[in-house]
Amino acid sequence: MTSARTTGPVRIVGAGLLGASIGLALRSLGVEVILADSSPSTVRLAVDYGAGRPEAVGDEPTLVVVCVPPDVVARTVAAELAAHPKALVTDVASVKLAPLRELIALGADVSRYVGSHPMAGRERGGAISARADLFIGRPWVIANHEGIADRRRADSIIEALALDLGAVPVELDAEEHDRSVALVSHVPQVIASLLAARLIDASEAAVGLAGPGLRDTTRIAGSQPELWVQILEANSAQVVGLLEDYRTDLDALIRALAEPSAAGARRAIAQVLGNGNSGVARIPGKHGQDRHFAQLIVLVDDTPGELARLLTEIGAVGVNLEDLRLEHSPGAQFGLAEVSVLPDVEQKLLEELQVRGWKIAGAFA
Amino acid sequence: MTSARTTGPVRIVGAGLLGASIGLALRSLGVEVILADSSPSTVRLAVDYGAGRPEAVGDEPTLVVVCVPPDVVARTVAAELAAHPKALVTDVASVKLAPLRELIALGADVSRYVGSHPMAGRERGGAISARADLFIGRPWVIANHEGIADRRRADSIIEALALDLGAVPVELDAEEHDRSVALVSHVPQVIASLLAARLIDASEAAVGLAGPGLRDTTRIAGSQPELWVQILEANSAQVVGLLEDYRTDLDALIRALAEPSAAGARRAIAQVLGNGNSGVARIPGKHGQDRHFAQLIVLVDDTPGELARLLTEIGAVGVNLEDLRLEHSPGAQFGLAEVSVLPDVEQKLLEELQVRGWKIAGAFA
Repeated sequence: MTSARTTGPVRIVGAGLLGASIGLALRSLGVEVILADSSPSTVRLAVDYGAGRPEAVGDEPTLVVVCVPPDVVARTVAAELAAHPKALVTDVASVKLAPLRELIALGADVSRYVGSHPMAGRERGGAISARADLFIGRPWVIANHEGIADRRRADSIIEALALDLGAVPVELDAEEHDRSVALVSHVPQVIASLLAARLIDASEAAVGLAGPGLRDTTRIAGSQPELWVQILEANSAQVVGLLEDYRTDLDALIRALAEPSAAGARRAIAQVLGNGNSGVARIPGKHGQDRHFAQLIVLVDDTPGELARLLTEIGAVGVNLEDLRLEHSPGAQFGLAEVSVLPDVEQKLLEELQVRGWKIAGAFA
Repeated sequence: MTSARTTGPVRIVGAGLLGASIGLALRSLGVEVILADSSPSTVRLAVDYGAGRPEAVGDEPTLVVVCVPPDVVARTVAAELAAHPKALVTDVASVKLAPLRELIALGADVSRYVGSHPMAGRERGGAISARADLFIGRPWVIANHEGIADRRRADSIIEALALDLGAVPVELDAEEHDRSVALVSHVPQVIASLLAARLIDASEAAVGLAGPGLRDTTRIAGSQPELWVQILEANSAQVVGLLEDYRTDLDALIRALAEPSAAGARRAIAQVLGNGNSGVARIPGKHGQDRHFAQLIVLVDDTPGELARLLTEIGAVGVNLEDLRLEHSPGAQFGLAEVSVLPDVEQKLLEELQVRGWKIAGAFA
């Protein structure tokens, strides 16, 4: 009846967006799911959505997944380890070392605890936004530590859970995880927030000139402050270290810009920009590969179906679209579509689109 | 024969990407265009592309457009003002106050000079990437100053040029322009470069966890250092002022994160994130309006034509697509399409897409 790798019953503590989503996905595979939450109405709502059943006396879960806010993760995991002495316990918090240390300090039996972190992106909304496919294609970090009794077995259970949810399992130890997410997630978040904060007092004229560069660099500044205060506090040591390095570079740049004609100043400014080039080149592209794409900027009328027509014609030419970005210009009744393709088909696509009457506003290799 | 608002001949000095693109656009409207460049081969190339004709003895341009790199703008404009005493002279540099001051210091006749700045976005490639439609829909700043003799006439000539190129004219004085672009363009550029620089020494594990947040915040860090050194130097006063304010906030955040359990620390962290929320809300949306959109995250197989099919079906439902973002997950054979629509049609679209078999990975109001 079930094609699941995971053997239930799985007890989920915290029936918010992540917990309810995990429940929905496991239920769809036929796995028995038990839902618990400090709020009875939250449990009832998640049960109504089909994410599992309420807990009952005598439940014996094989796996407990703790999906509570970061500041109560450790105490909740400790309570679950004590209440279910045969179960493996994991959590889904976005920081891994602080909860582990707190568990050890609490005297919890961490031999049955493996932390995990599904990188399910920015979540807006709560339990009612739960989706069975929330984790599909996302990295799911399995955070190992020295104290796990049977690490191979523990890893394989969490890996099965991740695969059942469609996620991509990645094994990292807790410290490496925290260092990595500080770099790729927590520091970008605070940098974007600090940058966006500059706009509070901006003139209408200034924000009217905003282009895609500003939009992209500040988009994640829209994230929830309450959640991020907890994440940043829990990973503060890693974040502070990176921010201090960042500030050293910022100080050097400010010094150079304060007197740009001084000896070495232009070189210092160029260094910042060159280092940015080198850094951004480290980010893997589509499917984790470091591929280079060519871009065509195509004008698309702002009427329903026009973009679909463009993509249909790109498909008809036999060219695979590697990436697509849309941009709307303030005051203009059309958008610009940045179409990324493999470099060796760019010229062909350019010609084919022009033949079909599309206006090409730019072509970049 | 011509539908142009601009009266030629127009002399373009500097036949690189911007100069050649302006030439192509004006030629397509039948305006006489004269091309000049310190490099004879650059002129020949631009002439071959159809951007204009080479200069000749006795030319009497009505308008001169200087499209040279920022560090030689002022001296080039001064030379053009002297050589063509009846012409209005403009330039397209992305900084406006420094060249104006330099012109005045050089004793140039600035009564016939109006600076302008077409916000034509990040340009990769050179003259060979020139396109007649490069400026369509982009803001074109007309930078006024006190010394212009007949400001209404001067503005109307530059406005006609901008409209002929499909751009959206915006009048600002030089200082307001520089303050505005420092905020929406120059500071985001250096912040993105400084952030991306942190990735140079990142582990493979860390960059493997990179998601859309990191990609967006660092994308413009790929810009050309040579050009940006000149832009930042020319607008250093405005940029330094903003970066110093930014550093004040960064220092406060680092202090709070260094001791997150201290009194007031969590509030200070929350303040940074809350200010980021307020700042990003200032950026206008599509068509310059502050509209709020709802998002659906749809799973799209990584095969040619699938995205087109999605957009065709959205069109068939009668829903207008307000924005679209694509995201590829490393290791997964499909992408996630973030579809933005007006909030009142989101539920309908969600249901219609599910009926048609699309997997919805998230829905956000």
